[in-house]
Amino acid sequence: MPELRKDPVTGRWVIITVDRPMLPSDFLREHVVPKGGRFCPLCPGHEDKTPPEVLAYRPGGGLPNTNGWTLRVVPNKFPVLRVEGDLNRKGEGIYDKMNGVGAHEVIIETPDHMKTLADLSEKQIEDVFWATRDRILDLRKDVRLRYIIFFKNHGEGAGAVLEHTHSQLIALPVVPKRALEEIDGAKRYYDYRERCIFCDILRQEEDSAARVVLETEHYLVFCPYASRFAFETWIMPKRHYSHFESMEINEVKNLGWVQRAVLRKIDKVLEKPAYNLMLHSAPVQEGAMAHYHWHIEIIPKLTRVAGFEWGTGFYVNPTPPEEAARFLRDAGLI
Amino acid sequence: MPELRKDPVTGRWVIITVDRPMLPSDFLREHVVPKGGRFCPLCPGHEDKTPPEVLAYRPGGGLPNTNGWTLRVVPNKFPVLRVEGDLNRKGEGIYDKMNGVGAHEVIIETPDHMKTLADLSEKQIEDVFWATRDRILDLRKDVRLRYIIFFKNHGEGAGAVLEHTHSQLIALPVVPKRALEEIDGAKRYYDYRERCIFCDILRQEEDSAARVVLETEHYLVFCPYASRFAFETWIMPKRHYSHFESMEINEVKNLGWVQRAVLRKIDKVLEKPAYNLMLHSAPVQEGAMAHYHWHIEIIPKLTRVAGFEWGTGFYVNPTPPEEAARFLRDAGLI
Repeated sequence: MPELRKDPVTGRWVIITVDRPMLPSDFLREHVVPKGGRFCPLCPGHEDKTPPEVLAYRPGGGLPNTNGWTLRVVPNKFPVLRVEGDLNRKGEGIYDKMNGVGAHEVIIETPDHMKTLADLSEKQIEDVFWATRDRILDLRKDVRLRYIIFFKNHGEGAGAVLEHTHSQLIALPVVPKRALEEIDGAKRYYDYRERCIFCDILRQEEDSAARVVLETEHYLVFCPYASRFAFETWIMPKRHYSHFESMEINEVKNLGWVQRAVLRKIDKVLEKPAYNLMLHSAPVQEGAMAHYHWHIEIIPKLTRVAGFEWGTGFYVNPTPPEEAARFLRDAGLI
Repeated sequence: MPELRKDPVTGRWVIITVDRPMLPSDFLREHVVPKGGRFCPLCPGHEDKTPPEVLAYRPGGGLPNTNGWTLRVVPNKFPVLRVEGDLNRKGEGIYDKMNGVGAHEVIIETPDHMKTLADLSEKQIEDVFWATRDRILDLRKDVRLRYIIFFKNHGEGAGAVLEHTHSQLIALPVVPKRALEEIDGAKRYYDYRERCIFCDILRQEEDSAARVVLETEHYLVFCPYASRFAFETWIMPKRHYSHFESMEINEVKNLGWVQRAVLRKIDKVLEKPAYNLMLHSAPVQEGAMAHYHWHIEIIPKLTRVAGFEWGTGFYVNPTPPEEAARFLRDAGLI
């Protein structure tokens, strides 16, 4: 008998196949390995092929937009939103619209075209999070920008257009619906129990251990109870912060190690799948929230989303999170 | 400057690329043409390869589960939900779950393996809607089933597993989140204005005409103002019904013609793309609603949904609906 499980934060139901779960070997999938050999605008030496950088780490020094960087952040050449102009909110009969004001940046995670994020060192991955934090702190000075999403599309199947490993930041003039759903759901729980629902999830996952992938001083990594997707994996900080950018230095350092370990486990169990990675954090113009708790969600691309999911928002997950966690837990780190 | 548009029913924002819109020739896509040549469990003569039929149209008569049908409905051999058993709702710490009770049926739209839905006659397509109506009226007798979704995945890229043209029905023991969002959004509008928001949308689209694809006595077909996807197209009945199954005979007949015309236009403009088609209708155990209005949504598979969309629920649509509607309107029917 399949099982229906409810996400405690958003109220979304998922159908989990319990009887004949799909295991890693049952999925047909893309294996993401950089091929190189084509002109790449993100490679060192091609700094003039991107818009001028907004941030770069050059341990050896050097001028902006020249070679010698270990990480580089540039505006997206084809941004989905633009920084200039007014929002100009207005109606159009019963409809509402505004100008597409916002920012869209690309974090080039390494100069090495042939490496994936999982191939990088702990320190290089840590730097991606420092860069994300630096950029959020800078972008939020523009009070028109209310929400910033950090995400990564890894592999063509996950929507990556350029092969050279990179992540993206998009700053939006409105708080998106999915973020609001999560924040509002967490608020309802808080109003009722006076506790953060994510802190309660952490406690229950730690206690039951069935869905835990790994645990460190600062983080718990687990496959969520109502996973929408097979091998969906969340990284959650143990300390309660609503905003990613509020983290302390030891937590950023530890996150480099944790992110690397999780991606290497996923690569090992699922043979280098395409994936999407998203940071969920509180709206940048708002103060610290007792009811919200930042975290990272990783969804390997193993199945297709089709009419049933689009029509209902219901998901069918062929691999129970307990099975997925067991595979990921048992996989070594190398 | 890109434009941000808000869906008036759900409150979802989308980013519409206005400056350099993507036209039909800019999309790389799958062309869905049946190839045949492999064993097909949905083909005539293989009636014993599916679970016993729950409905079939046999104009020439004949026994159940034998050849001679023009349309056949069978339970899915690998259902995501099962009819037997109790719901047995229960908690698991802070989580909620229940048994996966429900129904999952397949509507085989024609015996001809080499045809797509768009290739069928008006009458055959009309029959798909009659079968959907018949099955909804039967399934809703089971009061545990609260919501029924009719959908079609056309082409591998849209999640179709079998090539033989078919659609699916899934009956759920809970009203899914996405349906609730739409119904609740429409209710808020109704409470404020005492008018159905979909009826207001119909009026505004008819007046402006910019997004209209075609119009008949009973239906308006248009690309919605806040289309999430390029060439997203909705079929909306002019008469207000919350439930698809309440339609009158002339409206079902006309829907056969309309569905055929829309699919042929999409095939012509986008060269037989993969698509998902979903019926949005009110929960089956509830009475007629003044604030909700059934409709069909069609989303051709032209772009990938990636981290930004998963993380925010925001969509980036590279083709303004006004452009999409113009292409579809100008395309003939044959």
